[in-house]
Amino acid sequence: MGSTAQFDPSSPVFRLHEGGKLAMRSKTALTDREALSLAYTPGVAQVCSAIADDPALARRYTWRSRLVAVVSDGTAVLGLGNIGPAAALPVMEGKAALFREFAGLDSVPIVLDTTDPDEIVRVVQQIAPSFGGINLEDISAPRCFEIEARLRDSLDIPVFHDDQHGTAVVVLAALRNAAAITDRELGDLRVVISGAGAAGVACAKILLAAGIGDIAVADSRGIVHSGRSDLTPVKAELASLTNRSGVTGSMADALAGADVFVGVSAGAVDEISVAQMAPKAIIFALANPTPEVAPDVAHRHAAVVATGRSDYPNQINNVLAFPGIFAGAFDAGARSITENMKLAAAAAIGEVVAGELAPDKIVPTPFDPRVVPAVASAVAEQAVADGVAS
Amino acid sequence: MGSTAQFDPSSPVFRLHEGGKLAMRSKTALTDREALSLAYTPGVAQVCSAIADDPALARRYTWRSRLVAVVSDGTAVLGLGNIGPAAALPVMEGKAALFREFAGLDSVPIVLDTTDPDEIVRVVQQIAPSFGGINLEDISAPRCFEIEARLRDSLDIPVFHDDQHGTAVVVLAALRNAAAITDRELGDLRVVISGAGAAGVACAKILLAAGIGDIAVADSRGIVHSGRSDLTPVKAELASLTNRSGVTGSMADALAGADVFVGVSAGAVDEISVAQMAPKAIIFALANPTPEVAPDVAHRHAAVVATGRSDYPNQINNVLAFPGIFAGAFDAGARSITENMKLAAAAAIGEVVAGELAPDKIVPTPFDPRVVPAVASAVAEQAVADGVAS
Repeated sequence: MGSTAQFDPSSPVFRLHEGGKLAMRSKTALTDREALSLAYTPGVAQVCSAIADDPALARRYTWRSRLVAVVSDGTAVLGLGNIGPAAALPVMEGKAALFREFAGLDSVPIVLDTTDPDEIVRVVQQIAPSFGGINLEDISAPRCFEIEARLRDSLDIPVFHDDQHGTAVVVLAALRNAAAITDRELGDLRVVISGAGAAGVACAKILLAAGIGDIAVADSRGIVHSGRSDLTPVKAELASLTNRSGVTGSMADALAGADVFVGVSAGAVDEISVAQMAPKAIIFALANPTPEVAPDVAHRHAAVVATGRSDYPNQINNVLAFPGIFAGAFDAGARSITENMKLAAAAAIGEVVAGELAPDKIVPTPFDPRVVPAVASAVAEQAVADGVAS
Repeated sequence: MGSTAQFDPSSPVFRLHEGGKLAMRSKTALTDREALSLAYTPGVAQVCSAIADDPALARRYTWRSRLVAVVSDGTAVLGLGNIGPAAALPVMEGKAALFREFAGLDSVPIVLDTTDPDEIVRVVQQIAPSFGGINLEDISAPRCFEIEARLRDSLDIPVFHDDQHGTAVVVLAALRNAAAITDRELGDLRVVISGAGAAGVACAKILLAAGIGDIAVADSRGIVHSGRSDLTPVKAELASLTNRSGVTGSMADALAGADVFVGVSAGAVDEISVAQMAPKAIIFALANPTPEVAPDVAHRHAAVVATGRSDYPNQINNVLAFPGIFAGAFDAGARSITENMKLAAAAAIGEVVAGELAPDKIVPTPFDPRVVPAVASAVAEQAVADGVAS
């Protein structure tokens, strides 16, 4: 990545990161005996006893019910890959800062000195009583799927792997609006997804859930189909769920006649392939910092173009999803984040700009103040409808 | 405990605890693209890469170098005992608030859904890259000894079980000043410690390290001596280190002629036993909220009396020790907290009031602003002298 060039302590980035990006604060000043006796001994014993008698009171009398653990093992960090827990910590601090700034939620980065899935599951289970929700982050595929599934099954608090579902939710929101402004039904689109990692798998699943039947996924070896002998269990499942027209071959083969390209890998796609897409094509080239299809190239062949970058219109950014999703889950006291809650989040994000749709405005900007309240409200309502609220 | 009476949401204690006592804050506002691109993608990748290249930079560019994990399994909480992780959380939040308010340190409560020592050691090792130091809290004896020892041996950051060493450091500070105002040398005192749990064992060890040779420790079954067949490994070690005069029998037997009583259990001691102590006796009755010897009784037989309560003079309170100890360790980049660093902390606490000593002023009050800087400075200096600074 070009942005990782060198260590320059005097640059704005390094100056901003000096001492880290987070701080803890005490909500009560402890400057005299009276304050200390309420917040700590002997007063706190009353609160402990009340919770011991009625565990549900922990939600009311501790900070954990609105506290997210941002958990990573540092194996799949941004475009940097497996850089380990210490080097991943600045990203997790950034994520925690986003939870605070966008949704007013408290959040703590937890980076792990293990990459073993069994150990990761166990350690998160063990620290779970400290938190109200678990945001898994930058854990490499396919381990991320198993880790999330086992934690979802075993914990009674929301567990959410943002690299999967955050991306998928925003892609669905954007795609629904892109279909609307090009006068098509979501269900009629033929979609090609480039990348069968965390984001690719989750995008495929949420698009299927939203009613898109014709999806082909490609990884670095070409289109994922049941005839391939090199598939991981997750990709084998993907092969059985997608590719109903049974295409095989390369990305170029998949793109011929496709309506939508969703790029969630760093693999570049050449202009000749893009040119074979159907009329009014939709191109989401989300790789950062270098989109799979350069925006100027994409615009020559597509009606709607989105990227992951903040310096182009239509930025597909997870920050549109995860702050509101956790806020809504916490508002409802949700024990999990259901598939319906993700669909509700996608609908809410899309609806924010429904009255102002344009080819360069299919999603709100990350700083649109309407987003988090809309998402939180939709997610909380769906949690109640799904019976996971408390 | 009388203070644990009932759940009254309208009382000051419960109102103060509503929503918890801690909050996270972002040190940088994320209100526009420029800020986001510095604190998060793409800028943060530069910081991650720099740390991946040189792990020592994590200290400078993340918050962890001044971040304490307050870790508990909820097995020995205040006078409440084994109430579990959720009910222990208000105490850990209080402790984190104390770190912030007294030493300006960030701190995160981590309560654990396991009481197995192997699992506790492993989970703390796994989350350790997220933190600059580990404060173990309210973990029952004898498991606390093994857990602390194994973590100290395996981690390169400070590990400190406050129930042991915080108490021991302040007891030593107080005892040195109590000896001074009663014109005796520390080494000449005969000391009886009531309680062979976390605090009792640590008090015995620090007093031995400070030069007190004649110490007897009593547990609920009487004086700990090598002839007993019911000793845990930790108590057997204690028997070999203490009780050089070979006393056996009850607390009353131990107290006859003793100079000092240090109570770190809830076991009451009767006035007849106290009356048998040597002239100019020193009584530290630290059980909370009910001291082992009632202060008015103690004053009839002792020259100096201290308790653990804030409503009497001479409060022996861990908050005199742990904030400054961690601050000093962090200032020095210490990889561990050595025995000498604890002794240095005790000396520094005592010296704060050296010029104003009186029978009712052998330790500073918790709110004395001189304490934390003095302790931090002494601890950091000793870390350098001990070769554990970085």
